[in-house]
Amino acid sequence: MLEPERILRLEEDAVVFLDQRRLPLEEIEVRCATAGEVADAIRTMVVRGAPAIGVAAAYAIALAAERGEDLEAADRVLRESRPTAVNLAWALEEMRKDPSRDHANRLHRDEVERCRAMAAHTADLLAPGTRALTHCNAGGLATGGYGSAVGALLAAWERGLLEHVWVDETRPLLQGARLTAWELETASIPHAVIADSAAASLMAAGEVDCVITGADRIAANGDTANKIGTYSLAVLARHHELPLYVVAPSTTVDLATEDGPAIPIEERDPAEITERFAARNPAFDVTPAELIAAIVTEAGVHRAPFDRSLAGVVVA
Amino acid sequence: MLEPERILRLEEDAVVFLDQRRLPLEEIEVRCATAGEVADAIRTMVVRGAPAIGVAAAYAIALAAERGEDLEAADRVLRESRPTAVNLAWALEEMRKDPSRDHANRLHRDEVERCRAMAAHTADLLAPGTRALTHCNAGGLATGGYGSAVGALLAAWERGLLEHVWVDETRPLLQGARLTAWELETASIPHAVIADSAAASLMAAGEVDCVITGADRIAANGDTANKIGTYSLAVLARHHELPLYVVAPSTTVDLATEDGPAIPIEERDPAEITERFAARNPAFDVTPAELIAAIVTEAGVHRAPFDRSLAGVVVA
Repeated sequence: MLEPERILRLEEDAVVFLDQRRLPLEEIEVRCATAGEVADAIRTMVVRGAPAIGVAAAYAIALAAERGEDLEAADRVLRESRPTAVNLAWALEEMRKDPSRDHANRLHRDEVERCRAMAAHTADLLAPGTRALTHCNAGGLATGGYGSAVGALLAAWERGLLEHVWVDETRPLLQGARLTAWELETASIPHAVIADSAAASLMAAGEVDCVITGADRIAANGDTANKIGTYSLAVLARHHELPLYVVAPSTTVDLATEDGPAIPIEERDPAEITERFAARNPAFDVTPAELIAAIVTEAGVHRAPFDRSLAGVVVA
Repeated sequence: MLEPERILRLEEDAVVFLDQRRLPLEEIEVRCATAGEVADAIRTMVVRGAPAIGVAAAYAIALAAERGEDLEAADRVLRESRPTAVNLAWALEEMRKDPSRDHANRLHRDEVERCRAMAAHTADLLAPGTRALTHCNAGGLATGGYGSAVGALLAAWERGLLEHVWVDETRPLLQGARLTAWELETASIPHAVIADSAAASLMAAGEVDCVITGADRIAANGDTANKIGTYSLAVLARHHELPLYVVAPSTTVDLATEDGPAIPIEERDPAEITERFAARNPAFDVTPAELIAAIVTEAGVHRAPFDRSLAGVVVA
């Protein structure tokens, strides 16, 4: 497992990130000395993944607080850096209560602990010989350590339940091919990268047992925003009678958002797809709760009706 | 429209191809002086698209015949160059009857004429304001002129029925982003390239009215092999109650193949996905007839049950 402090950490005078844009070809660190620089790192995806950007924002606030800077201004620039993941807003609310370095470190530690709890809950759902398909990167890089969906795969592997992982390459930024494959390789878990559009025929061929993804925001009714392509997998999984498991910490559950249509979906620069042609580049999609077999948080396995099963999960 | 002879043609001493691997960045021609070189051009996708590789093989046979070369050997090397598209075998059978240059030219001309007929039939199915989604490149480049699915879009555009085209970028080789977008741009048809995995959420948002693709081989029961990702779109279209129209010439219909599972699916080099990671790279998938609203050939619109509606379509 990637050490949490290798993914991101607070040093004396900077928040330091492993640059996820350059992985796996280069392992380069990026130092951000201000909240504005951390917001840029979030926006440009030096650091990405809902829980990880929450931790990044917490570190930025702690740094600003130590310097006696304007915390409202820091909060604002961080909050606006990316719209879909709710963890960012959650972490900023937490840091309003206590903007100390200790608190930020604790938030980071807590996210990793939640991952271990979710992983165990998810592994409980899997049968021996499982061939799982995952999308994007919901690994240690995305959560600040261990991982949500990838954490579940690690736990299943340790228990001898996992046979193979299909990794959607995840266009346009290839988080699956670049980041998830790298994490699985590090853990020596058998896997193969596939073009996103090949998932359906692997399902039809009986080579997939379940789909496991992370989440960026889970609405009160269970509708889940995650990397573009997740909704596509959800429909395909339903058609092939395979379960979709969403693995995410309670910090990703947003009870204040009623349902999927109320979740803001980021549209990123079409140039990420192509410099040359007209393009559309929605970065996330929403999967209706109806297509999700279970949502696993650190509190356990939540099933439909999600409005009831998720209600108690978020600690106010 | 791209002139057929610009896409591929038979010159005095070579078959000449517009190199589809380099488009749209460079317009370079590749000259193949032997059947072996034409087979390499097919294998490496200098020329691709089921009808176009059939025409390429016909030109190679004509060239070999003029030189008094071993036609059985030429037939064999061409036949083995790619397994899925049936047009290759069809064109080689045709050239056995008459291996002349005139015959090869006529086969090329006929494919383009079939495209125009299919395009008119498909446009008849579309309502004004249609926003179509297409996958891969079933354009003039794929058929040797005008195009099957893209031909249908051209005809719909000329009739004022087409509002917008969503173009799947089509990983791993990006035929949609590189070739279809280029052809639509040339025809001034409004379009945007999307990541393949974004198609589902555009459908859910009500921004797609139908899916139109080409085909590499259509079995007797209507099961259709086409670029990997087509089956995925078929399931997604069904879920969103959108019609999938497959537009292909009768040379793509293979009554000797009973159904989808009997169609050989090419697996290409995983390096096309990534040089670095374990990968799987199926190049085609099979869409069950059950998910296809209509198959359009130059003979007209065929509906289920396809075993009956396709039966008369292939001229023996």
